[in-house]
Formats: sequence, structure tokens, C-alpha cells
Amino acid sequence: MIKSALQIARAAYQPKLPKALKGSVKVVEGEKTQSVADQKEIEGLFPNTYGMPVIKFEKTDGAVDFPAINVGVILSGGQAPGGHNVISGLFDGIKKLNADSKLYGFILGPGGLVDHNYKELTAEIIDDYRNTGGFDIIGSGRTKLEKVDQFEKGLEIIKKLGIKALVMIGGDDSNTNACVLAEYYAAKDYGVQVIGCPKTIDGDLKNSMIETSFGFDTACKVYSEVIGNIQRDCKSAQKYWHFIKLMGRSASHIALECALQTQPNVCIVSEEVEKKNMSLDDVVVYIAEIVAKRAANGDNYGTVLIPEGLIEFIPAMKNLIAELNDFLAHDDKFATLDKDAQRDYVIKNISKENAKIYASLPQGVARQLTLDRDPHGNVQVSLIETEKLLSEMVANKLEEWRAEGKYNGKFSRQHHFFGYEGRCAAPSNYDADYCYSLGYTASALIANGKTGYMSSVRNTTAPAAEWIAGGVPITMMMNMERRHGEMKPVIQKALVELDGAPFKKFAASREDWAINTQYIYPGPIQYFGPTEVCDQPTQTLLLEQGK
Amino acid sequence: MIKSALQIARAAYQPKLPKALKGSVKVVEGEKTQSVADQKEIEGLFPNTYGMPVIKFEKTDGAVDFPAINVGVILSGGQAPGGHNVISGLFDGIKKLNADSKLYGFILGPGGLVDHNYKELTAEIIDDYRNTGGFDIIGSGRTKLEKVDQFEKGLEIIKKLGIKALVMIGGDDSNTNACVLAEYYAAKDYGVQVIGCPKTIDGDLKNSMIETSFGFDTACKVYSEVIGNIQRDCKSAQKYWHFIKLMGRSASHIALECALQTQPNVCIVSEEVEKKNMSLDDVVVYIAEIVAKRAANGDNYGTVLIPEGLIEFIPAMKNLIAELNDFLAHDDKFATLDKDAQRDYVIKNISKENAKIYASLPQGVARQLTLDRDPHGNVQVSLIETEKLLSEMVANKLEEWRAEGKYNGKFSRQHHFFGYEGRCAAPSNYDADYCYSLGYTASALIANGKTGYMSSVRNTTAPAAEWIAGGVPITMMMNMERRHGEMKPVIQKALVELDGAPFKKFAASREDWAINTQYIYPGPIQYFGPTEVCDQPTQTLLLEQGK
Repeated sequence: MIKSALQIARAAYQPKLPKALKGSVKVVEGEKTQSVADQKEIEGLFPNTYGMPVIKFEKTDGAVDFPAINVGVILSGGQAPGGHNVISGLFDGIKKLNADSKLYGFILGPGGLVDHNYKELTAEIIDDYRNTGGFDIIGSGRTKLEKVDQFEKGLEIIKKLGIKALVMIGGDDSNTNACVLAEYYAAKDYGVQVIGCPKTIDGDLKNSMIETSFGFDTACKVYSEVIGNIQRDCKSAQKYWHFIKLMGRSASHIALECALQTQPNVCIVSEEVEKKNMSLDDVVVYIAEIVAKRAANGDNYGTVLIPEGLIEFIPAMKNLIAELNDFLAHDDKFATLDKDAQRDYVIKNISKENAKIYASLPQGVARQLTLDRDPHGNVQVSLIETEKLLSEMVANKLEEWRAEGKYNGKFSRQHHFFGYEGRCAAPSNYDADYCYSLGYTASALIANGKTGYMSSVRNTTAPAAEWIAGGVPITMMMNMERRHGEMKPVIQKALVELDGAPFKKFAASREDWAINTQYIYPGPIQYFGPTEVCDQPTQTLLLEQGK
Repeated sequence: MIKSALQIARAAYQPKLPKALKGSVKVVEGEKTQSVADQKEIEGLFPNTYGMPVIKFEKTDGAVDFPAINVGVILSGGQAPGGHNVISGLFDGIKKLNADSKLYGFILGPGGLVDHNYKELTAEIIDDYRNTGGFDIIGSGRTKLEKVDQFEKGLEIIKKLGIKALVMIGGDDSNTNACVLAEYYAAKDYGVQVIGCPKTIDGDLKNSMIETSFGFDTACKVYSEVIGNIQRDCKSAQKYWHFIKLMGRSASHIALECALQTQPNVCIVSEEVEKKNMSLDDVVVYIAEIVAKRAANGDNYGTVLIPEGLIEFIPAMKNLIAELNDFLAHDDKFATLDKDAQRDYVIKNISKENAKIYASLPQGVARQLTLDRDPHGNVQVSLIETEKLLSEMVANKLEEWRAEGKYNGKFSRQHHFFGYEGRCAAPSNYDADYCYSLGYTASALIANGKTGYMSSVRNTTAPAAEWIAGGVPITMMMNMERRHGEMKPVIQKALVELDGAPFKKFAASREDWAINTQYIYPGPIQYFGPTEVCDQPTQTLLLEQGK
């Protein structure tokens, strides 16, 4: 690896730890827990890992002798800044317990466990990856660990390497699977612990005990940097409307956080669109009205933030997509037709209501809805260029209004989609510290014999020394949801709460931002400057904690 | 303006100045100059501003009393990081000469001069913009100052405000116009000086006396930050080929500099494509061969950098576009046909050679070549999504090879275009210092009665104290070129030199980068850290100066 100057300088950063983790720790148990819903079903499915108490670690004076332990670690799913620091925290934690402890990394995700593809992570390797972005130390993957034969196949290598505990670094699905695995190994009395770590830039893995998922802070800051740059350009040139789509598969946390950091003219929040039962046309009119108002003030420029998952939150679009999935899965004729005929064929054969919406879509988007399908035959909503869809429909709406004499501006457009730009950035101080602490906490959970827990670090808007480290039973976060036609126990996804402080702050400000141009330019993440520049958590977290 | 934490902290930065500018200066004149070509024509067109000597400033002990002067400043064309620092350097410079000097900014570009749209830039305003990105202090615009009635209209407001000199901050065209204006005012003996400043992120305004245009450093660093992040993601997921188009209208300096900073698997350099007379298919085969070689090693991922101007450097595409422009300008039938018929119509009616190329293009691109036309009827090449064009053609090529048994990999693609993300970033230390020095130097040129000069700061890979400040006659950079059918005097654009050190370094490394994955992750611009992180000039400049 050829290291950049920043990487070399940043390697020297020593991530901060909660005070409690700096010496020997003792476990303080809280009350027994319940799952967030469907308690009876979840308890029935997880008899060995249900109802355990929330725990926290406190400092203790007595030094404890720990035997050496071998631990395995897996990176699962999409990259998020700070994954390497979880691993280095875990490494330092188990080495502190006993210098002979070993850490094994499974290669390219959960598949590495099943396929026995691994490498030992030595101090030399770890040191090359401290405070860096990416998951490239061992790679990541999306193989789902959910079947007994996978668990048994994994056990072979676990036994061979003398592994006492697995740490699964992943999002809600991966942590659900970690819990299923913990339960299985516990039920079989295999003596293998499984600990989860909350990862995802999407910010949708959080709850009363998990303040935030790691990577959300850094990714949002990178997106806000470039959004801020675009806004400064936008205001200097006064020439374009920039439609900016932001990654975050389902929830709108990223779009909302970036809006709070940059104050764009428009930000769409999917959860609000769904709650208000808005149609696509409603969303288009909402944006077009702001464009028209600004044009009336002579401001023919602006910025619009769009969450990636929007389309699926528009009830009418959701219905259309569901009917298209169903219709096309059971149809043989469609594929034999030419393009124009396909369009007519769809319009004739789906329900009147959906046909009307389908016909109203720009042709390119309508095509995407019928053509790009995943292996299960479903529309790949993530491929839909929502930013272009919206800007085109807004342009059409404005032309209607122009014809009616209601609008007389210019509307030139630029489009952007940010996702891969931020998932592997070097972690901010917040994520560097938070991740290192999560990994270190995982080692303490392992040392204390815990399984089916997620590593938890709380109170993170305070200085790191005051952070509270502990563990939360994963079953506590679960409910039953329908997946591929079956009811399954899964970790409940945290969507944007419309009565939460971050959304309320946004909602109270957005009219001002829309008309008066209140752009903020956050600039790039700084690693070496004054603390008010380098050490701020997200606006979302600050507002959620009343700060 | 609501200031971000970084903006507030960064406002305190005091840009560095060449030693010579810290006290009173004296002018040291060099030899008389010649234009780079077409000396006779240029001299004939610029009798009053031709042949002046290059000058440099040296420190002198004698304090000089200057009368107060009023100066006007104009931002012209696309934004580039550091424009605000040119203005603050100019402001500080004329205030140092005499505290009663005044600076007027013309609003939204050269049009502000013609329309008498201006504001006085007071210390309070200037202080709000020091070390910030953007041109929003007065805005920018693209009105071309080239006609006598514009010059005369501008003179009215110049006289009214008692302005002694205008500073034009712009790219090659704007500086050409600045020189025409300087010549006109000199010929008329109006007593108004005109000074240019070399701005453009494209990096194509440079020559023996102008080391670099401002903004190139910062913009390339922002693009390299996100390219690095994408590469880290790419290597972690091992799943996608990322095709990344980079702004830079014509020359490939930005793509080349970003390649030197990040070491992607592929970087296309337009100037090389032209020199080697490569066809579009040659470029596609070049990329596809690297994809196939990597796939043979199990590496089904990678990164490709593409300069925005590529299409126009492919001789065959250039011919096709020229014929299409000509054909469609004199054709009435095309617009009346439906889409499929249009395609056939074009193929039937243009030359055989061009028809073959046209037919080989993906349909969407072929359509763009005939549909999106500027007000002059020309194809808008900048709208062509070259990154998607190339990735689609590479995909097709690989499928051919797969059918022949020559390729057996996966080829999933992602596309990016970076431009607006970097033009208004807060200037790096290099650009902050360089721009401030350029502005300050402009004040010294004004004080010494110069006109038709471009502000020049050289030796910028050395510490700022050793930088050499002076002025270069703009006529020295000129030659005659055909523009819209007429021969015009223009500043010669600096393309990437294939025998220059930056390209040679790239060419010597690219095979290794292609196959062995040597990504560098530069990370975001740092403003407060160690000097090796914060104060490095571009690789291009370091290599050009043998460092």
C-alpha cells in the first residue's frame, strides 16, 4: 500500500476511549429486556438469547488475569468509515486482556467464514489500517448467514482456529443474522460467542440504546462538503438548479443530516412524503413552487436534496411498482414486443389507477421500471435516477405554468448522486473514536462471556472520556416483519421520526432556506484543527440529545 | 451569511506573500518580449501593448508616497477556488499604498461593467470572504467584453467612479479580452489600466512565465479526495468498475493530475488519443484489455478517469461531429421524423465513414449527437455522458470477447462526473497564498502604471517567501487562431505536453497501476495539519519543476 501524506500523519492519531475501558472493567447489569414488539414470537425463536439485561462497563481497580483468546471478525455489507478502527479497537482490547490473544479476519464478508477464507490480523497489519477508511483490510461481502449448514460449516473453521467469539460488523440484517447465529451456537452449546457492531452510513440502525451507527457521521460530512461546494458554485454563478440524490437505501437520515449541515433550498424527506400520502405530482409541485417563488425574486438557481429511497415511500409509486412486479413476473408477451409497444402493453394491462401514473412518467423512467429487474424479477429501484426524474417533471410543470402565465423564469439543471464518494472516507474524529470504542467494548463483552449482544457506546455528544460502554441484547431490537412472503424476526429499522428533534428543526427552517438562500459551506473534514471544527458529532445526534 | 465552523477558523489564516511584496517595491525590467507566434499580426493589432518587457518586483528600502487610487475588479467565467483571495490581496495591496484607496467590484461578471452594476468592496465585506471558496462576493458571468460600444459604456462608469485600473480575473479568453481592452484604452489615451489574473481550474492557462492558473490545485485535490474514496470502496467491495469523468473543457490536465495523485487503473489523456490518432474503438479496446487482464487475475473491479473533452480529441469523432453540425444546420426534414427514422436518415445522408462510426455508437449517445444543440446549432459536446458511452462500449466489447472465449469476468459499472464539486471549495493553502499574492501583485502593477499585463507569481514550489512576483505582457502569450470562421488574436491554450514530465511519469507508471492496483487515497484538503499534508503543490507543478 502506498500511503498518502494524510494517511501517514493520521496513522499517529490515538482514538479516544471511554474512561471505563482504560483499566480493568466490571459488568453492571440493568433490568431484563423485552423485544420492541412481538415479544412472544421473538422469545420463542431466541430462547437462549432473549430477555438478557442491558449491561454497562465500569472501571474496577482489581487487575484480572485473562487467558489468551482467539477471536474472529467479519465485515458485512456496504462499506462505512471506521470499520478498520472497530477492528483495531477489538485487536487492542483482546491483546490488553492477554498478549497471546489472536485475531482472525474472515475474507470478503460472511462468505469467508463459510468458505474458510481467513487471515490472521497481526499487529503489523493492524497498524497499517488504523484511522483509515475502507474495509479493505479483509474486504466485505453480502453473503447472508442464515442457514444451519452455513453455521455448521463456519463452526469447522472456528474450531480449527480455536476461536472463542465472532464479531460481526454490519447493518440491521447482518446483526439479525449475528443474533440467529448466537442463538444457534448457544442452543447447541458450542461455546462460541457472537457479538454485533452497529455499522451503516444510512443511520437507520439506532434505538434507545444504540445512539447511532458508525460511518453515518463521516459519510454525511463528506456529502455535506461537496453539497456545500456545489451551493457556493450555485450562488456564485446563479445559473443552475442542482438536483442531488443521496445514498441511504430506505430511510432519509442522510438527506436530513446533510440538509441540517448545508441548508439547501429544498430537501425531500421520504418519511414525510409517505405520512402525508403525497403523490409524485405532489412532490413535483412542492419543488416547482419553490423554483417559481425564487424565480419571482430573480433567483433562478437552487439546490434540492433527494433521498435515494424516495420512490418507494410514495404510496402510489409503491403500488405501481408492486403491480408491475406481479404483472411482469407472470407475463410472457412483454419481452417479445418493441419498446413503444411495450409501453402501450403495460398501460393496457395494469389497473387504471396505476396505468395513469405509469403514463405520466418520463419515458426513460417508465422503461427502467419495466426493464431493469433483479434476479427475483423485482424492479431495481436503486437504479432509478430519481434526481433526473424529478427535475424533468419539475421542468414540465414549470412549462405548464409558463403557458398559464404563472411562471417566467429560467430553469437549467444539473444532477448529482453521492454515495460511493463517502462510504470509504477516512473516519472523522468522531467515527475514529466511536469505532475504536465499539471494537474495544466488543473485546470486553467477549471477555465477560456475553453472546447475542451488540457492542454499545453511548453519551457520545459528551467528551469521549464520559462515553458509556456496554452491550445491548440484539433480541431487544427485534420485531417480526414479512420478508419474501415469510414472517421473520428482524431488527427494526429506524426511519426518520417526524416528531423527532432533527426533523422538527428542519421543518421549522425550511421555508426560510427555500426563499432566502441560507446556504452553509461546511468544507472538508478536518483532522488536525481546532476542536469546534474537528470534533463535532452530527446535527442529528446533537438535536436528538437536546443539544 | 451563516458561517460554518471551518469558515470561521479559516478566516484567521494570513496568506503568505513573496518577500519582495512585504515592503516597498521597485520594478526590474527584463528583455522586450515577442508573442509566442504570429508576431507581426499580434504587434499590428496591439501597437500600444506589444513587446513590453517581463517585469519583476524587488524589495526596496525607500518608502514611496502613493496617492489614493480607485480600482475595479471583475470575476469572469467559471468559478475557481481562490478568487476571493485575489480580491482580498488586491484590496490589501491598494490600501497599503494609500489607506484612502477604494476597490469596486462589478457584479456578475464583465456584464456588470457594461451595465454599471457594481458595489464598493469595503474592509467589512472583504473580511467575510478571506480564504473562502466561490465567487459569490460579487458573482461571476460569461459576458464577453470584445466590442467598442461595451468598452465605451464601461468607460462611463469607470470615469464616474474615478477608477484608475481594472483587474480582470479570468481564463484565457477573458485575459485575451482584458488585453484588447487595455490596448483600446491605451490607444484612446483614456488613462485606464487593465491587469489580468490567471484563473481556471482547467489548468490550461500557463506558459513559460505563468506557472499555473489558480484553482487548479484545490479543484484537483477535491476530485482526488473523492476519487480516492471511491477507489478505497472499489478495493473493499471488489465489485464495480467506476468510470469517472472529470471537468476540464478541453485539456486533460485535471485528469492527469488526479491520476498522479490517486493512481487509478486507467486514465485517458485526450492529447495522447489525438496524437496517436486513436479511434473511439481503440480507446474502448485499450480499456477493455485492462478490464480483461484484471479479470484474469480475479480482479473484477477498477477505476477509469476520463477527461471531459475526450470526444473532441478523437479525430474520427471530431469529423463526425463536424459533419453532423453541417448536415443538420442545412436540413429541414430531420426534425419531422420519429426517433428510429431519424437515426436511419442520418446514417443514409452522411459520408460512409462517418455513418459507420455513428451506427456503432450506443443509441442514447447517437441521439445526443443529433438532438442537444446549442443556439449556434452545434452539438453540445459537454452534455455527452462520455463516462457512460465508454463503459457501455467496453461492456459490449467484453461480451464479444466472452463469446470468443477470451474473457470470463464480471463487469458491473458505476458512473461519476465531478466538476461543480470542486470549483468553489475553500482554497488550499497553496491557492490561498498564490491567489492572495496574485492580487497583491496586481496592486503593484497598477501602482507602477502598467497595463496589458498579467499578474505573475513564480517559483511557487519553493517556500512562499521566495516566490517571484511580477507581470507578464499578455500579448506575449498570444497567437492567431480561427474562431467562428475568423482569425483572432488569442492566448494560446496550454494542452498536456506528451514530452512533459507529468505525462512521462504517468506513462511510465500506468501499466503497473493498471494491473497491480496501486491506489493512493489522498483524503480531504487539510488546512491546519503538518506541512507535508497541508502545503504540497500539485504533482504536475512539482514534476514540471523537476521536483
